[in-house]
Amino acid sequence: MPKKVDHEKRKIIIAEATWKIIVEEGIEQATVRNIAHAADLSVGALRHYFTTQSELLLYSMQLVSDRVRERMASQQYDGPPLQVMEEVLFEFIPLDKDRKIEMEVWLSFSARSLVDPDLMQLNQKVYHDLRRVIIAVIDHLISLQFVPDQFAAEIETERLYALIDGLAIHHLLQPDSLSKEMMTSVIQHHLKSLCKQEVLDK
Amino acid sequence: MPKKVDHEKRKIIIAEATWKIIVEEGIEQATVRNIAHAADLSVGALRHYFTTQSELLLYSMQLVSDRVRERMASQQYDGPPLQVMEEVLFEFIPLDKDRKIEMEVWLSFSARSLVDPDLMQLNQKVYHDLRRVIIAVIDHLISLQFVPDQFAAEIETERLYALIDGLAIHHLLQPDSLSKEMMTSVIQHHLKSLCKQEVLDK
Repeated sequence: MPKKVDHEKRKIIIAEATWKIIVEEGIEQATVRNIAHAADLSVGALRHYFTTQSELLLYSMQLVSDRVRERMASQQYDGPPLQVMEEVLFEFIPLDKDRKIEMEVWLSFSARSLVDPDLMQLNQKVYHDLRRVIIAVIDHLISLQFVPDQFAAEIETERLYALIDGLAIHHLLQPDSLSKEMMTSVIQHHLKSLCKQEVLDK
Repeated sequence: MPKKVDHEKRKIIIAEATWKIIVEEGIEQATVRNIAHAADLSVGALRHYFTTQSELLLYSMQLVSDRVRERMASQQYDGPPLQVMEEVLFEFIPLDKDRKIEMEVWLSFSARSLVDPDLMQLNQKVYHDLRRVIIAVIDHLISLQFVPDQFAAEIETERLYALIDGLAIHHLLQPDSLSKEMMTSVIQHHLKSLCKQEVLDK
């Protein structure tokens, strides 16, 4: 079914054109007209794929979320458990061009979602999708018996999630103030602080 | 000099009208025309105070930052040190209407600042102004001798700042997923985790 593939491909091209406009000019420039122009389509052709601007923005944000999860799933993580967890958590941090674009798009969508209920609903889905990665890290620490007996899993999940998103946003907005080295130190220190002393002594 | 006072008052009214539009309709609706209308002014009269939209947005964001710092400075903090620190840190969290508006405006400005160098520069100033509050909390913990000898002040500053901003953003975007009670537990737990055991045993 080559027709179907082309259809999906075209939608991805349109979504990527939307990202480009958001990153370079701001979300307020992401109009149907501007996006059609950037994707080399007529407004009519674009409307064939997305009837409304809201539908288009939703698809574009969904694609960001899918890409992040695909990248996390395809990654080959090797090494000691704490190092692997550190690498997984660094997938949230906008260190390279792709992750920076994704995070800029996410920030623009988040701001916009405050006044757009449809986007807010999707934002909620993305929030919980990414939270699942954090839960997996915490669960892994527990199953490895790295954490003390009185470990508060729910509190530690929210603490780690807020910490990682906070670092990601600080680094996106102030890359010169919060270096990669400092973020590495913070994440390593935090993961160690969750572990029992005997695990660290090994 | 009543003339001067009126001038400043008018600028504040315009900035607050700008916030209202950003919160209710999104930053892309914060045009000079719409803001003039919301502030009950002609476009010409508004241009008397702010020549460009960028100037107007800068002033509006600066006012958010000033309000946050004024509120922190005017607060009467009483009680045990850890409880006072918890209260200071909660000033960052959008729990009431004022803080929610400030944070929504901040998020919209932050997204916009990615494509506007003037806003980015102001954003950097706000980042460092608020970081100073975090430094004060960490310094206070040190001067009280609550922390262990091998305390890494710089890492702990970035960790606490990222944690608090992460909680604030999560609560702003997902108030139903991250309750006030959970944030209280996270912040209390984090502050305690920075202290020596003997301080907690007291």
